[in-house]
Amino acid sequence: MPAISLKGKNMPESPIRKLVPFAEDAKKRGHKVYHLNIGQPDIHTPQVALDAIKNNTLEVLAYSRSEGSEEYRTKIAAYYHRNDIQVKYDDIIVTTGGSEALLFAIGSITDPGDEVIIPEPFYANYNGFATASGVTVVPVVSKIENNFALPPIEEFEKLISPKTKAILICNPGNPTGYLYSKDEIKKLAAIVKKHDLFLIADEVYREFAYDGEDHYSVMQEPGLEQYAIMIDSVSKRYSMCGARIGCIVSKNKEVIGTALKFAQARLSPPTFAQMASEAALDTPQSYFDAVIEEYVERRNTLVAELEKIDGVRVAKPKGAFYCIAELPVADADDFARWLLEEFHLNGETIMVAPAAGFYSTKGIGLDQVRIAYVLKKEDLVRSVEILKSALEAYKS
Amino acid sequence: MPAISLKGKNMPESPIRKLVPFAEDAKKRGHKVYHLNIGQPDIHTPQVALDAIKNNTLEVLAYSRSEGSEEYRTKIAAYYHRNDIQVKYDDIIVTTGGSEALLFAIGSITDPGDEVIIPEPFYANYNGFATASGVTVVPVVSKIENNFALPPIEEFEKLISPKTKAILICNPGNPTGYLYSKDEIKKLAAIVKKHDLFLIADEVYREFAYDGEDHYSVMQEPGLEQYAIMIDSVSKRYSMCGARIGCIVSKNKEVIGTALKFAQARLSPPTFAQMASEAALDTPQSYFDAVIEEYVERRNTLVAELEKIDGVRVAKPKGAFYCIAELPVADADDFARWLLEEFHLNGETIMVAPAAGFYSTKGIGLDQVRIAYVLKKEDLVRSVEILKSALEAYKS
Ligand SMILES: Cc1ncc(COP(=O)(O)O)c(C=O)c1O
Ligand SMILES: Cc1ncc(COP(=O)(O)O)c(C=O)c1O
Repeated sequence: MPAISLKGKNMPESPIRKLVPFAEDAKKRGHKVYHLNIGQPDIHTPQVALDAIKNNTLEVLAYSRSEGSEEYRTKIAAYYHRNDIQVKYDDIIVTTGGSEALLFAIGSITDPGDEVIIPEPFYANYNGFATASGVTVVPVVSKIENNFALPPIEEFEKLISPKTKAILICNPGNPTGYLYSKDEIKKLAAIVKKHDLFLIADEVYREFAYDGEDHYSVMQEPGLEQYAIMIDSVSKRYSMCGARIGCIVSKNKEVIGTALKFAQARLSPPTFAQMASEAALDTPQSYFDAVIEEYVERRNTLVAELEKIDGVRVAKPKGAFYCIAELPVADADDFARWLLEEFHLNGETIMVAPAAGFYSTKGIGLDQVRIAYVLKKEDLVRSVEILKSALEAYKS
Repeated sequence: MPAISLKGKNMPESPIRKLVPFAEDAKKRGHKVYHLNIGQPDIHTPQVALDAIKNNTLEVLAYSRSEGSEEYRTKIAAYYHRNDIQVKYDDIIVTTGGSEALLFAIGSITDPGDEVIIPEPFYANYNGFATASGVTVVPVVSKIENNFALPPIEEFEKLISPKTKAILICNPGNPTGYLYSKDEIKKLAAIVKKHDLFLIADEVYREFAYDGEDHYSVMQEPGLEQYAIMIDSVSKRYSMCGARIGCIVSKNKEVIGTALKFAQARLSPPTFAQMASEAALDTPQSYFDAVIEEYVERRNTLVAELEKIDGVRVAKPKGAFYCIAELPVADADDFARWLLEEFHLNGETIMVAPAAGFYSTKGIGLDQVRIAYVLKKEDLVRSVEILKSALEAYKS
């Protein structure tokens, strides 16, 4: 029997995946499970986007251009202009989700054996894209006591080797909810310029910046044009995760030219989803205002409730819709499984994501979980009630 | 300025791409261009598939399961049963086009530096997927004088090295139109078993088998269960290229388990397109009968017309919708460009794909072009008329 590859063996599994069967079993036992474990918002997709699909008049569902239609890219560029990001349509390649944009970015700038430095905890699938490309993730630890702010720049310096090709950040962060300040972006800009590295910024949560703080994009930093690669997506912005439309953006023509070759090989991004995404750009501001208000209230509720529990520490998120909580348990992995397998409060329990899966360094974050506030307030309040009583029961 | 990767530099460009600006210029000069260069059918997408999209009632366009919904995979398995292929829903992972299925297959079974043997001429994007995975394509030449039948098995034997991980075939073939016989599949089965290799079969043109000949799938070959990986797609079957839905199929649990990890990293295939693809499985047989009849007539017309031209040799296709023609020119690349740039017959010209781009060995196929018969008969007749008069003009 032929063997699968080393790369295949090394491909990481989703850190949440192994809990899924326990959640299914809990449901089979008639328990209600609150899903705090996933980044799938319950928010409605904008009606303009859904209508564009319903009213389409296609007769032949044909390939689109590999880089996305010029019309759609022009409209994306206009959206960026409104966000103070000066790019043109030909700085943009439309991809199948932010996921594919990440794969193209890593593919374009690394060879097998190369390294990418990423502040941890980080979005777990970066591991998958790196492994698929034969690239090693080099983590630099950010700390819950600092709200997961940018680690000191000396920590990056220490890790840079001749194999380092890029620093990859997520802003605002999944799973941390941290929003990098302009000053932090400037520090990163200085170090990538000094060492001739790319700065890849995953900005798929751009809109989700709270408390009046502005999101500062790597594309806004003067002098960073040849170094910055931005990853974007319609998934979270318009609650259109299933569309699978994102984009890779860079002023560096060689990067875009190379990513285009990857894009040509896979022919085109999905046509219906592009129609919906183009229409979504006409979503009225009132939609976003309502969504942001909703998330801020959810966050405030969640954090306030969590902080009432003895021994729980929360990093207050300034963006995205995740937060990391440190729990008074030794092994959050075991606790998360136990929540599903053995615990319930009047027939209800919760599913959380153990945070260890978001760290690349072994042995840290073991007492942390990621909680996604993608449920409505009452459910969040109830979820924290369940967590509180579970922590008491788990101790004994 | 940071450098892009070697891999990025090596990513091949689409062989047709460089002709596109010339075609655009020809159109600007007011010329009509018949596109014989692409695999985008003009056939209507089945109404059931289009209706499923128009009538959808989604309010939140959510991620689907990474492997595709169980319901859709169960329906795909039933389709395979009708085609005498005995697979279950969990032998199937839904992918973003056959393209992604190819990437997952190569990613799951190869490491950088490994080799995959492919009969040439072959679908040019195999080069892109191999390069993206750091894998070397080792070509084995099939010949126009044999209609591009399977090369002698000794030719494969000669090329097998410790780095060889798989043989990849396309059946029926793009660009050759060749349909492998049961006997040829059995020969391939024997050699992969002998050398412990995978046999990847790209069967996206399964339905397009003509002259009453049956398509014999690698999944039908007894004893090949652990070796066979099938690539499939809705793109051509239902003229749904823009959907971006395909699948990878294997009875080998380790292959499927590994491909699933790649699938999880990119989250999910497109949701709308999956709805359309699921509905497409209810397309009435009459649709396919009409489509096949249409393609057979187009092929017969095209081949008959081409054979009337002095010095033109055609490999008669038994499947798919491409044919390779050898022309009385030294450099088909130059000729294809000249057709767009300098020639017209009463304001009309044609765009063909120089076949050299489908060969991995340098210097062969230079006098060949690939013609896709994705246009209606009158247009094909007119196109060959244009070709004939162009060949005369080009000579002088
Ligand atoms: C930080 C981050 N980047 C990228 C993605 C990929 O999203 P998509 O491929 O749906 O655009 C996600 C999805 O959860 C994410 O959280
Ligand atoms: C032989 C072959 N395989 C795979 C593909 C990829 O098709 P898709 O990704 O649209 O399924 C094509 C498209 O032309 C093809 O010709």
